[in-house]
Amino acid sequence: MPQQQRAQLTRHSIMVAAAEEIDDVGFEAAKLSAILRRCETTKGAFYFHFSGKEDVAQALVARYREVLDEFRERWYQRAQSPMATLVGLTCDTARRLEQDVMLRAGLALACGHVGTDTDGWESLFDDLVGRAAERGQLRPGADPAAVARLCYAMVVGTNLLEASDLRRLATRLEESWRALLPGLVVDGARTAAAAG
Amino acid sequence: MPQQQRAQLTRHSIMVAAAEEIDDVGFEAAKLSAILRRCETTKGAFYFHFSGKEDVAQALVARYREVLDEFRERWYQRAQSPMATLVGLTCDTARRLEQDVMLRAGLALACGHVGTDTDGWESLFDDLVGRAAERGQLRPGADPAAVARLCYAMVVGTNLLEASDLRRLATRLEESWRALLPGLVVDGARTAAAAG
Repeated sequence: MPQQQRAQLTRHSIMVAAAEEIDDVGFEAAKLSAILRRCETTKGAFYFHFSGKEDVAQALVARYREVLDEFRERWYQRAQSPMATLVGLTCDTARRLEQDVMLRAGLALACGHVGTDTDGWESLFDDLVGRAAERGQLRPGADPAAVARLCYAMVVGTNLLEASDLRRLATRLEESWRALLPGLVVDGARTAAAAG
Repeated sequence: MPQQQRAQLTRHSIMVAAAEEIDDVGFEAAKLSAILRRCETTKGAFYFHFSGKEDVAQALVARYREVLDEFRERWYQRAQSPMATLVGLTCDTARRLEQDVMLRAGLALACGHVGTDTDGWESLFDDLVGRAAERGQLRPGADPAAVARLCYAMVVGTNLLEASDLRRLATRLEESWRALLPGLVVDGARTAAAAG
């Protein structure tokens, strides 16, 4: 294996190990020795790639943001209604979080340790619900800004409530969208089906 | 002033000072010395009432639970529809949280430091939404369990999003209930008015 490729593999396995450790015990309690044990890597190899625990955390947050940006790009490009885009994007992200420990750790770090940056999610909800309103797809009389905040609060709350067992997150989100949308948007039942 | 009354006042002022300190910097960073400065109390007086920072935290959580129990009792006794009870109770609690630093610290401690106890909120939502369903007050086809979780996630999410400025919490909750209820319950607009 070429040296550069091997180095990339090591870097990746350190990030996975750090993510697993952070996912299990949290950033504060995560120990460098435990991370090294998990990926069977030496201290020397670790410090070749990262300056410390904080540095890996930053890399995990950066990767989380990259992945989210890709997701958003992909869902925006599908020619669906704005609300279907919102439903599909949030449920798709939830399913990915269930499977991807690096993404879970990145999200936890982005929300907690590294800052309270909401990564543009709030403005994304505003944007999509605003577009739905422009197209007359919201229930008559509904205030787009309030609907956007309601949907965002629902997703944030569901994330928090299912944080201990993220395997249920996507299922719960889909259920909540199905309960929420029929009263909120025109043709809501069909929009909620975009979750699946 | 009788000695017992003076002792109660001191205990109360220590709890307020601890709550302010925890509200400002969080439990972990809260320092006993800062708490004593805030309430102008000696270490001796402090240790007469509490065995340490942890002990005050437990007292704040206990008070938070007592206050919530009173709130629930009061709102259950009013002869309103179950959904109006839910809306009124959550918005009333939010308004109280804005004004009462001991309650804010108690909530933060109950959710974070002391445990992840949800204080029966989840079952309260289940109970009230279930009753609304029995009375035929939910939108036809709505699944009561999913609606209860949706409402609970909305309230939890709104709490989290407004955590940095709880003065806005009640306003945001009222807005969200107003956006949510018309599509969720029969006569939803009138029910949402129970928030005010």
